[in-house]
Amino acid sequence: MKTVIESENARRVADLTRDYEALGEQLDRRGIDIAAIKDRAKGFGVAVPSWGTGTGGTRFARFPGDGEPRNIFDKLDDCGVIHAMTAATPKVSLHIPWDKADPAEMKAKAEEHGLGFDAMNSNTFQDQPDQAHSYKFGSLSHTDAATRQQAVDHNIECIEIGQTLGSNALTVWIGDGANFPGQTHMGQQFDRYMQSMQAIYAALPEDWQIFSEHKIYEPAFYSTVVQDWGTSLMIAQELGERAKCLVDLGHHAPNVNIEMIVSRLIRAGKLGGFHFNDSKYGDDDLDSGTIEPYRLFLVWNELVDAESPDLNLAHMIDQSHNVTDPIESLMISAIEIQRAYVQASLVQRDVLAGYQAENDALMASATLRRAFRTDVEPILQMARLEVGAAIDPVMTYRASGYRANVGQIRPKVSGAGGGIV
Amino acid sequence: MKTVIESENARRVADLTRDYEALGEQLDRRGIDIAAIKDRAKGFGVAVPSWGTGTGGTRFARFPGDGEPRNIFDKLDDCGVIHAMTAATPKVSLHIPWDKADPAEMKAKAEEHGLGFDAMNSNTFQDQPDQAHSYKFGSLSHTDAATRQQAVDHNIECIEIGQTLGSNALTVWIGDGANFPGQTHMGQQFDRYMQSMQAIYAALPEDWQIFSEHKIYEPAFYSTVVQDWGTSLMIAQELGERAKCLVDLGHHAPNVNIEMIVSRLIRAGKLGGFHFNDSKYGDDDLDSGTIEPYRLFLVWNELVDAESPDLNLAHMIDQSHNVTDPIESLMISAIEIQRAYVQASLVQRDVLAGYQAENDALMASATLRRAFRTDVEPILQMARLEVGAAIDPVMTYRASGYRANVGQIRPKVSGAGGGIV
Amino acid sequence: MKTVIESENARRVADLTRDYEALGEQLDRRGIDIAAIKDRAKGFGVAVPSWGTGTGGTRFARFPGDGEPRNIFDKLDDCGVIHAMTAATPKVSLHIPWDKADPAEMKAKAEEHGLGFDAMNSNTFQDQPDQAHSYKFGSLSHTDAATRQQAVDHNIECIEIGQTLGSNALTVWIGDGANFPGQTHMGQQFDRYMQSMQAIYAALPEDWQIFSEHKIYEPAFYSTVVQDWGTSLMIAQELGERAKCLVDLGHHAPNVNIEMIVSRLIRAGKLGGFHFNDSKYGDDDLDSGTIEPYRLFLVWNELVDAESPDLNLAHMIDQSHNVTDPIESLMISAIEIQRAYVQASLVQRDVLAGYQAENDALMASATLRRAFRTDVEPILQMARLEVGAAIDPVMTYRASGYRANVGQIRPKVSGAGGGIV
Amino acid sequence: MKTVIESENARRVADLTRDYEALGEQLDRRGIDIAAIKDRAKGFGVAVPSWGTGTGGTRFARFPGDGEPRNIFDKLDDCGVIHAMTAATPKVSLHIPWDKADPAEMKAKAEEHGLGFDAMNSNTFQDQPDQAHSYKFGSLSHTDAATRQQAVDHNIECIEIGQTLGSNALTVWIGDGANFPGQTHMGQQFDRYMQSMQAIYAALPEDWQIFSEHKIYEPAFYSTVVQDWGTSLMIAQELGERAKCLVDLGHHAPNVNIEMIVSRLIRAGKLGGFHFNDSKYGDDDLDSGTIEPYRLFLVWNELVDAESPDLNLAHMIDQSHNVTDPIESLMISAIEIQRAYVQASLVQRDVLAGYQAENDALMASATLRRAFRTDVEPILQMARLEVGAAIDPVMTYRASGYRANVGQIRPKVSGAGGGIV
Repeated sequence: MKTVIESENARRVADLTRDYEALGEQLDRRGIDIAAIKDRAKGFGVAVPSWGTGTGGTRFARFPGDGEPRNIFDKLDDCGVIHAMTAATPKVSLHIPWDKADPAEMKAKAEEHGLGFDAMNSNTFQDQPDQAHSYKFGSLSHTDAATRQQAVDHNIECIEIGQTLGSNALTVWIGDGANFPGQTHMGQQFDRYMQSMQAIYAALPEDWQIFSEHKIYEPAFYSTVVQDWGTSLMIAQELGERAKCLVDLGHHAPNVNIEMIVSRLIRAGKLGGFHFNDSKYGDDDLDSGTIEPYRLFLVWNELVDAESPDLNLAHMIDQSHNVTDPIESLMISAIEIQRAYVQASLVQRDVLAGYQAENDALMASATLRRAFRTDVEPILQMARLEVGAAIDPVMTYRASGYRANVGQIRPKVSGAGGGIV
Repeated sequence: MKTVIESENARRVADLTRDYEALGEQLDRRGIDIAAIKDRAKGFGVAVPSWGTGTGGTRFARFPGDGEPRNIFDKLDDCGVIHAMTAATPKVSLHIPWDKADPAEMKAKAEEHGLGFDAMNSNTFQDQPDQAHSYKFGSLSHTDAATRQQAVDHNIECIEIGQTLGSNALTVWIGDGANFPGQTHMGQQFDRYMQSMQAIYAALPEDWQIFSEHKIYEPAFYSTVVQDWGTSLMIAQELGERAKCLVDLGHHAPNVNIEMIVSRLIRAGKLGGFHFNDSKYGDDDLDSGTIEPYRLFLVWNELVDAESPDLNLAHMIDQSHNVTDPIESLMISAIEIQRAYVQASLVQRDVLAGYQAENDALMASATLRRAFRTDVEPILQMARLEVGAAIDPVMTYRASGYRANVGQIRPKVSGAGGGIV
Repeated sequence: MKTVIESENARRVADLTRDYEALGEQLDRRGIDIAAIKDRAKGFGVAVPSWGTGTGGTRFARFPGDGEPRNIFDKLDDCGVIHAMTAATPKVSLHIPWDKADPAEMKAKAEEHGLGFDAMNSNTFQDQPDQAHSYKFGSLSHTDAATRQQAVDHNIECIEIGQTLGSNALTVWIGDGANFPGQTHMGQQFDRYMQSMQAIYAALPEDWQIFSEHKIYEPAFYSTVVQDWGTSLMIAQELGERAKCLVDLGHHAPNVNIEMIVSRLIRAGKLGGFHFNDSKYGDDDLDSGTIEPYRLFLVWNELVDAESPDLNLAHMIDQSHNVTDPIESLMISAIEIQRAYVQASLVQRDVLAGYQAENDALMASATLRRAFRTDVEPILQMARLEVGAAIDPVMTYRASGYRANVGQIRPKVSGAGGGIV
Repeated sequence: MKTVIESENARRVADLTRDYEALGEQLDRRGIDIAAIKDRAKGFGVAVPSWGTGTGGTRFARFPGDGEPRNIFDKLDDCGVIHAMTAATPKVSLHIPWDKADPAEMKAKAEEHGLGFDAMNSNTFQDQPDQAHSYKFGSLSHTDAATRQQAVDHNIECIEIGQTLGSNALTVWIGDGANFPGQTHMGQQFDRYMQSMQAIYAALPEDWQIFSEHKIYEPAFYSTVVQDWGTSLMIAQELGERAKCLVDLGHHAPNVNIEMIVSRLIRAGKLGGFHFNDSKYGDDDLDSGTIEPYRLFLVWNELVDAESPDLNLAHMIDQSHNVTDPIESLMISAIEIQRAYVQASLVQRDVLAGYQAENDALMASATLRRAFRTDVEPILQMARLEVGAAIDPVMTYRASGYRANVGQIRPKVSGAGGGIV
């Protein structure tokens, strides 16, 4: 891989140097030091979800791709490629039970690729073979105490696995809710959820955080227990200091101003991090930055503005790659998130503050747009080049023949039908 | 008016009696005592907003109606008619400065009609003539301290006026926000808002409540300071025990499950009351129960379920009557709200709880629908008849000739253009 | 089954008679003959989709139920129960290839239950084993001519199968679209779609209709070829007289006024029929009438208003039953659709026309609500009783023990995972 | 003005030249000739709406600005400034009756500023003083024939005025609809609308076009006669060849894919042009390109792709400037629209077509984003510089002191209240 990167980079370095210099000169006129921005780009990282390396699907169908990973070790290999190419994804986020395996072997494999482990993700929205109690009617908020206990135990197991791997956070997303008005008592259901979460929180190690992730709908289509950030905030407040709210960009009602939610959660001291993706309709789980790139920038604008040693956020990509090579989508997505972060770093905050103080709405707005429309591609490329990653990750990856190679080893998984049959 | 009501009722009482008895027999089979439900109907009340008696408009135009009220005394006369006909609107909610007048005269006029005063409403979303500072760029959250102070002072004045009239609550709704990304610093803007609210809270009498009312957008079209119930909850939590959240049915993002917000706010001990209306698109301010009556029922289902001596809610109609006689719309709306309340009172809660415990989603859902589809019209009519109100308020009102009469006295106000010119 | 129905009906007939008489007297005062309305209820029918008898799922999971049908013959048995209980579902709609079997045997089984066959449904949104070309990137609009031809051939095969069964319509719904801006050339993609549809249309028997069904999104999440009724109208116009538009209640953008689309398509002579369901967020495929019953009524209000010998519509239920017994959901849904039809039949259209002519918005609106809030349950029950169906279908079905019985014969299908892994 | 422009440009020309050259070199590597792109920028024009030069408002309030135009001559002066600064707004679109004045004087004033007249806009959504029939319940679709005739006559008058000024198109947007289910018969209302439009069409000069403009809601809040592009298409089809559909970017349901509507209307031969603005919630009428710039780019991507001598589109800005200086907002908006057009001109269409043919969704999408993220500011600036307009229009305008100067002459108009009182 290293050889391919070097040979591909060699073809592009001259043009890059020219573009980087021209941009540096332009930024200098704005009083911005391009090298400092490039250092910020180098310091950026977003976690890759292990399951994102497989081809996703909808309830209608899943169309498999070539060389899909068969297990967590294959997934870690794929994550290794992504990080080698982009230098922007230093951590992997696991999903239990999908990723259950020998911890020592997993750590060894991760270290081989220079990867660490991010937040653990539990799964109580599906039934596993030989599971005692079904989650058909809920998990942490189920009316049946034994089912709730089973879900609590599973989350505690996720923590335990995570401890062996060096993770220090648990993300809890559940599909519990209802498909019909009246199906559940919404207040009592939430009470049951809180009791379960308190049991999990009691088992949380001192240096861990727990994230509650809200979602307006799906898989429940009338009501969802953790339906929005207001409920998520109530949860984090009730649980305690180590409980935070995780924001998934696709889990909101139409038209909602997400960057404002970011601002509010920061104020409440309860922002825990993000699940990045993009969407046009619902929880479309499309590649980050491909539908509404300015929205992604505005989210980062809040995050950069609020940067402080106290604000340690867990960022992960959470997408479903249905029609692309997942490795390519994850590389491109990591870069688009990084791009928004870098663009947000170009906002001239003192200038902006001046316009805001004078209610000069036009120039305040123009100040953001000026940062957004700056083509920071040379900064991202140079940051990658300098740490040995690829100037052009997709073309370099394609040149490497990685997918064809693993396609030889990993048999094609015939497309499991969606839930619609 | 009394004579008209009596003569109109006389024509309808025989049919009503028959329908009431048939319904009573049917409810009896369900184990429901119709007389007890009728008593609940009699005990129901929702406040009328003084300004709702005038014809509303949009930013495009306002088309005036005949005999529109010229001042608060005319408005109180109209409110008196509404209450005489429906017996469901015992209180009036005032809007300052629109309703400024001599308190003693206002009280006398209200008592004449058997009316009391509900929550006071401040107005810092419009500029008044000779106002020192403009609210063009905000009020309680303005960047300028003097503008904020002016807005705080106005709210305190509203409290003082309310005290002279027997009100005991202040509803604060502001239009502050931004039309452009970057126009305001969302975090600092909220901080300024909180400081202003704390100043108002400090002036709140011990037996008063303050309601914060959220709205997703309009008049600000990019961001709004109090945009959703999550922010409203943060506000009520920070202010203190006498601060509550007010829910307007039309102030949410598309698709949002409002009854779930009701459930959450009840759990948080922060539900203050409602602004009732109906809507299809945005804050359409249409007549309650005319677009999605089942949604209104589901909200009441939560409220009836949570009834307790501790849950004292302030309910008001908040609509814009653009194409109807406002008196008629307010009568019909009060009755539709009352209808949903009565239907929700028919839900067999022990039966429902049984289905919920068994996860019998189909029958749980059917249990709610059974209550909803019960035609409770005879209960509402009988409740009115027995307290001297009209069996058929609209037809009785039309028979009274009230509108034509006031049309003689009150000159037609030519339609002020909307904001679009 | 007949015995259970009779014994269960016997327990309910006395109460029903009383309620029916009371309602008849009440309707008589409105000038409505209850017997005529009951006859309309008896004449009502909506098709059941064969696949609706299985438990549905989401992309996250599918939780199987007991005794799920193993094949089309089991499905027809289930459909037979639904029709025996409700007398409202005389036809079954098939989905090819899911329901491929010997036509003669299928006809025999259907006739055994007194069932006929409604519109055929093709499937080019999933890959079948041993299929030459994948639909991952589209079917009728694919860039590859061979893939398009395969999809065309499949649709023609559906017609041929339908001809052997007595069906006379083909519904074409495709998932073709794109997940990314730029993925497809939207204009050329539509051109290819039209060419494929023209090839299918050329093979359509003279007495058949073809329905194009639009959907705003899912499974494609950026653009969909037949995304709304405007495109569907263009298709039907270009194809010819026997091409019509099919409206699925859950396939629209948020807030869209569906009854207005109905009105427009009727005017254009292009309304073909409905796929009934209910939804709160997206294509939730919830049970008809359980979320927004008034919207369902308003759709029927348009259909009843436009009744004419020329308007022959194909109505089908199209839902996903994830948490209920599908047979129960289909029975309840058929009844809720029938209820809305009967309520719409109570609208006093001459009275309404009078209010509309005078722009009496309040009373026009009240006229619709009066019909909607009439509890027509006794009419529906009496209509069923008189044709030998069940007064209370769900309780009668439960009393029959049908599900437990088939649960003995049909093995539990372990829950196929959703597309999200 | 010319002097200010020259002196301001002189301060910026050196930096511009450097940036322009660097960009030119970069584009050259992509095989794109920057000079050709610059020429396209020079050829770009979008019309300014005369009324956009005044401060807008909402139904809650209107906060006036300094030096607002008092009449059409003041408005033309303001439009002259906008065009002098940007060279991107060669035409003005008039609104009758707001802009009624002596045609010869208007033409003279326009020529003074080098301006022409774009499409005429009629107004039947407001009542004018001394108007015989009110539009409270509709205009072209009113139940009353005399009211419809009045509205028809007004539209014909707009055509006549337009003929004297050199316009050759009429845009018809009406607010007709209903606030309540049942208020109107939707089918008959549309029939009446069509009759009125046919009468207008009959009066349309041979070289004129008529545009129907759809809008999902507001000012009508339940149903709107021309609610979406499907209805607009039906209208244009029925009227005839010179009837086209006009797309306003803010008039759609949430989540709707507008660029796909563009593609469909082009295919149907019925796209007439655009009303540009931006929005987050409803018809927010915010400045173009300030909320979702990528959406604006995607619309232009369709338009550039479909460029042909047959596709002559009428483009206008249609915004409400509530918190900014309208001249500044119009300048910035014209430039943002121009920017999207220029970015769309950078799309490498042969490369894109290749990726589309191979279903390489990732690279197809990346090809669009590459064009979008190119910072074309130097091209826009150079295009302006070379025709004598301002490199930095806002700063140059501010330096000119124009607003302060007209503020001396034009008295402040106290803020007319919104429709909410």
